[in-house]
Amino acid sequence: MARFFVDELPAEGSEYTLRGENAEHAKVLRLRPGEAVTLCDGRGADCPCTVVEGPRLLAGPSLPCPAEPRVRASVWIAFPKADKAEHVIQKAVELGAAEIVLFPSRCCVSRPDDKSLGKKLERWQKIARSAAEQSRRGVIPPVRAVGSYEAAIRGAAEAELPILFYENEEHLTLHEVFSAIGTPLIRPGAHTGAPSPEGEGFGGRPAEGFSVSLMTGAEGGFSPEEVEQAKAAGLKICSLGPRILRCETAPLAGLTAVMYALGEL
Amino acid sequence: MARFFVDELPAEGSEYTLRGENAEHAKVLRLRPGEAVTLCDGRGADCPCTVVEGPRLLAGPSLPCPAEPRVRASVWIAFPKADKAEHVIQKAVELGAAEIVLFPSRCCVSRPDDKSLGKKLERWQKIARSAAEQSRRGVIPPVRAVGSYEAAIRGAAEAELPILFYENEEHLTLHEVFSAIGTPLIRPGAHTGAPSPEGEGFGGRPAEGFSVSLMTGAEGGFSPEEVEQAKAAGLKICSLGPRILRCETAPLAGLTAVMYALGEL
Repeated sequence: MARFFVDELPAEGSEYTLRGENAEHAKVLRLRPGEAVTLCDGRGADCPCTVVEGPRLLAGPSLPCPAEPRVRASVWIAFPKADKAEHVIQKAVELGAAEIVLFPSRCCVSRPDDKSLGKKLERWQKIARSAAEQSRRGVIPPVRAVGSYEAAIRGAAEAELPILFYENEEHLTLHEVFSAIGTPLIRPGAHTGAPSPEGEGFGGRPAEGFSVSLMTGAEGGFSPEEVEQAKAAGLKICSLGPRILRCETAPLAGLTAVMYALGEL
Repeated sequence: MARFFVDELPAEGSEYTLRGENAEHAKVLRLRPGEAVTLCDGRGADCPCTVVEGPRLLAGPSLPCPAEPRVRASVWIAFPKADKAEHVIQKAVELGAAEIVLFPSRCCVSRPDDKSLGKKLERWQKIARSAAEQSRRGVIPPVRAVGSYEAAIRGAAEAELPILFYENEEHLTLHEVFSAIGTPLIRPGAHTGAPSPEGEGFGGRPAEGFSVSLMTGAEGGFSPEEVEQAKAAGLKICSLGPRILRCETAPLAGLTAVMYALGEL
């Protein structure tokens, strides 16, 4: 079913006309009268509509988007080479990331200057929007950048569970990180509405809105000093298993494992 | 550390000379005398070596490759468009897949003929080899293709836990699949050698060599009939969460979640 992000959802029973890029997209899709489409406000609310004719739609009652995770996962990646950032942004949005933040680190080969960064961010945000539409997300995750590694660890450390994945960490696994926070952490079938113990989990914190941040390095990984800095800032230094993952694979594997562990897949 | 797949590992204390592509690769890496490299037989055994000079190495004692998962995960993907197969193969090898099998399905846009398939398989196998080297795997996962959807479900059904991920499945989650097999399924820190309850798990089956197969569709997904056929063959029809994943994202998300659930990350 086609999905369009709009600024404001129409009231139930009213008509709405798609405009601009949405209207063009609708033309490409050759929507037919009577076909079902969904408008989304990008803030978590969906409005199912029926095509009247061309870009004109008839609005049904709005409802919360069922595809939004309860957990807020921020994905922090060191600037990678070439188009790897695009890849990670597209997939991270599909997998349920709340935001994607890029940062410089010692081993970064690619460090865009301010001018090219502005253009890149614009392009990356478009990729996030289109991935959100395609994967039926209810929000468009923002893509942003911070200017220093220090700002990145400060920002990542604000989450309730901040993690840095480090290829040389041989002891602490994600399982152990979750065990240490308290059980039950796994809420089977959270998204299918299956019963789950209320009021438990996350050491007494509400599961809704629980925040995690996941930091991964660029091609060269992190330096031992950077890892120490992150640890001092409160991040948990964690392994992603004994296989060495590429810099574009690690953030997505980490995000998937965390979403699974928190009952979001 | 550089890693080379060779046919036969040298005996401890003997000299070994890299040949062919390995010798060329060693030249590019500009290995220096005294540098540590690893030879691997592609069947799970590693041999740490020291560079004597150029392609000449001095062999240490062989040992099991620490990066090989205990679980045997087969990744079955419907032929996708363009270079998406290459992407999935590379990442699935990094993430610990035991093999990758491609198959035709009703919605496949791309269906290579026999001649082009032979060339593609050769190329895909090279990608698997190079991903195995890079991620420090102990085996080179085979990449193969089967000729029909029926052959695919028969093959996938041979695993102890065969799963088909279906975007329209709204009830059964991976968590529920694992709960149904029996607990404890999660062995925290299996790869770090942390203590784990022996003799338990997998309904009494030994965890070592436990086999799973993960089937995902092409761009158009599976038809309801195909899903019924798979169910009849014994596959569990399972959701990967409420967000719609692209056909190149789904197999990797499924593999990551399964590897995490089985204590391999």
